[in-house]
Amino acid sequence: MSHINQLFNRRTFIKTTSTAVFGTTGMLAFPLKTELPLPVINQENINIVGPKKGFSPQIGTLVSMMNWMRSVVLGSVRRMNIKELDYIHDKDANSIGAMLLHLGATERFYQINTFEGKRWGDWSSEDRKNWSIPSGLGERARQTIKGHPLDYYLDKLKEVREYTLREFAKRDDDWLMAVDENWGWGPTNNYCKWFHVCEHESNHNGQIKWIRNRLPV
Amino acid sequence: MSHINQLFNRRTFIKTTSTAVFGTTGMLAFPLKTELPLPVINQENINIVGPKKGFSPQIGTLVSMMNWMRSVVLGSVRRMNIKELDYIHDKDANSIGAMLLHLGATERFYQINTFEGKRWGDWSSEDRKNWSIPSGLGERARQTIKGHPLDYYLDKLKEVREYTLREFAKRDDDWLMAVDENWGWGPTNNYCKWFHVCEHESNHNGQIKWIRNRLPV
Repeated sequence: MSHINQLFNRRTFIKTTSTAVFGTTGMLAFPLKTELPLPVINQENINIVGPKKGFSPQIGTLVSMMNWMRSVVLGSVRRMNIKELDYIHDKDANSIGAMLLHLGATERFYQINTFEGKRWGDWSSEDRKNWSIPSGLGERARQTIKGHPLDYYLDKLKEVREYTLREFAKRDDDWLMAVDENWGWGPTNNYCKWFHVCEHESNHNGQIKWIRNRLPV
Repeated sequence: MSHINQLFNRRTFIKTTSTAVFGTTGMLAFPLKTELPLPVINQENINIVGPKKGFSPQIGTLVSMMNWMRSVVLGSVRRMNIKELDYIHDKDANSIGAMLLHLGATERFYQINTFEGKRWGDWSSEDRKNWSIPSGLGERARQTIKGHPLDYYLDKLKEVREYTLREFAKRDDDWLMAVDENWGWGPTNNYCKWFHVCEHESNHNGQIKWIRNRLPV
């Protein structure tokens, strides 16, 4: 069954990533496990979705999904060089590098919306400067997001994720279930917003893999 | 912020879908709400991720994510005709129709593995006949999955999902947290397996949208 085989290969992939991307610096394949001033996320439990020590039960469950999803994305981009990260497949395509930065932008904007209670678009000039272009993707991203090694993108994703986890650790399940009645697509709770941040990584991972399989040799 | 705008547009999309795809038959944009001999899933709560009446707390939370994710995929394929569903973008590309059927195959195989406790690949001849090709995608899927209207794919997805929900309704959170120590990518609980089934829809939705934006006019 090729579907499951892909997953098994991907798993090997991810294991490889740990040494390939992060070398022997002590940072493992699954980001956020080490180096966090935070409830330790046990790598052995990466495939156990459920409550996690240091987080309220439902927030910990969400964190376990976000960790799993992130490890899959890291597997897809392992060992990519600048040329591969910058590759534009056609005039409308986004580069893999731009999509990685887009994931950080999405997560940052949801942080501001859900942690600071600001309406969508009410960003500081610094956040706007850092994240508006990767959030928007398209032509401006094609023109400006290029020339960076993989670690540039991984460091930004890691920095954003660390802040997410620090803020999650301060909150409880009542916060996660709190509903934003004025959200653009209808009443939406924080759990749905953060599930979207998580599944959005899979959405772009599907495109990253599509492009990865078509990189010029 | 175009990211959120896309989401808002997508929401309109999905609303449109209900009448576009399902007409005025009473079936709404969000699949599985009606016609199910099951705990009713309230459409008004589509963006509320959390426990759902008729399911154990964590299973209901998973169901709410699966419903939300499915509604997004339906939005992406709304109003597609046979030519669009059959379109092959390049020699290695899968058609949108094949990817829709692939989502059904993935869900069906995880049903057998997690509900019946069978090892991956231990499928009945009927399941093999129905699902092996869409599960594998690639050349065999390009050759054989074609010529079907959108409803053909939506009906199959709906039938598979209804069985998933009926089985979920019989189970509890202990089952969802049960760990398969022999899973190919390492010890994995049923929650992780079913989260993967859910995020896998987003993975292919990213590719469906990529192709949708490149359909010949």
